[in-house]
Amino acid sequence: MQGAQFLNAKVLFVLAHPDLPHSRANKRLAKAAAGVAGVELLDLYARHPDLYIEGTEAREAISNAKALVVQHPIYWYAMPGLLKEWFDRTFRVGWAYGPGGTALQGKKFLASITTGSHEDAYVADGVHGAPVDDFLAPMRQTVNFCGMAWLPPLIFHHARNAADAQLEQHAGVLVDQLNALLEDET
Amino acid sequence: MQGAQFLNAKVLFVLAHPDLPHSRANKRLAKAAAGVAGVELLDLYARHPDLYIEGTEAREAISNAKALVVQHPIYWYAMPGLLKEWFDRTFRVGWAYGPGGTALQGKKFLASITTGSHEDAYVADGVHGAPVDDFLAPMRQTVNFCGMAWLPPLIFHHARNAADAQLEQHAGVLVDQLNALLEDET
Repeated sequence: MQGAQFLNAKVLFVLAHPDLPHSRANKRLAKAAAGVAGVELLDLYARHPDLYIEGTEAREAISNAKALVVQHPIYWYAMPGLLKEWFDRTFRVGWAYGPGGTALQGKKFLASITTGSHEDAYVADGVHGAPVDDFLAPMRQTVNFCGMAWLPPLIFHHARNAADAQLEQHAGVLVDQLNALLEDET
Repeated sequence: MQGAQFLNAKVLFVLAHPDLPHSRANKRLAKAAAGVAGVELLDLYARHPDLYIEGTEAREAISNAKALVVQHPIYWYAMPGLLKEWFDRTFRVGWAYGPGGTALQGKKFLASITTGSHEDAYVADGVHGAPVDDFLAPMRQTVNFCGMAWLPPLIFHHARNAADAQLEQHAGVLVDQLNALLEDET
């Protein structure tokens, strides 16, 4: 079966970047994540070039995993369109919520997000008007509603222009977090 | 040119519902809106069945219009995936923001949203944990960032099961709002 590797994921790492060849930070972070044994990388734009998502594959993978991680640039203060489509199609009634919908209960959830701005743009009187965390309310409540545990997000600001050393350091933080998820027995 | 009618829109009304035949409220509200002279309905899922959005058509239409309205059900505390994709593809640098990106400045923006729950589920100790308005932060900041004027959203709760009279009353409120936008000379 194509995609059988996802069934062995202890951590499913869903990457959503519409132009990965021109990505800097998301490409680097996804590569770092994919190098961790037990983490399986699901590159949404590569796996669904026609943008059509049915959801069964991801549901099976997540059911077998203990944690779900999403990696994406912030676009218009939210996730890219295809990742939202993925949530809409994958987290369906009777699986994620509602009668019999217990598949996600107790699993851990981590958002790893990049931004194009310096952190000081994400303040009340900055150009973006609020911290990134405020804009994550829809994703956080989705996670809570489905009974998953929301972990503090990893935010990498100024992703395109940050120093190489900063990006490498952040990739290390992500790998540490993934290892912690893999070792977590709670 | 296919789509030329959009160029005459004074108000562009963007509808995003992935299964309109089975919709109740969004179908009714879109029909009401489409009946208002000067309002042009852009049914995203009908117009982009392959989910591919380039954005030029909508940019031209919005440039000629004085207001943009979006109509959608709330999915996972946010807009449906295809509408997010539409924002990502349409509101691009050099048009919506950044150097030369002034196309949206001063236009009015209205979100018309349906939910599946009663309003009392959208409170701090309700199952959704916060008012709908809190979850609209990404859309509101997108609108603000692009220099548009954010109008108080129209929210129709419990859309599938509300009484017919309530839906008709709400359709009337929407039509009144659209007429006010059309008559607005500011």
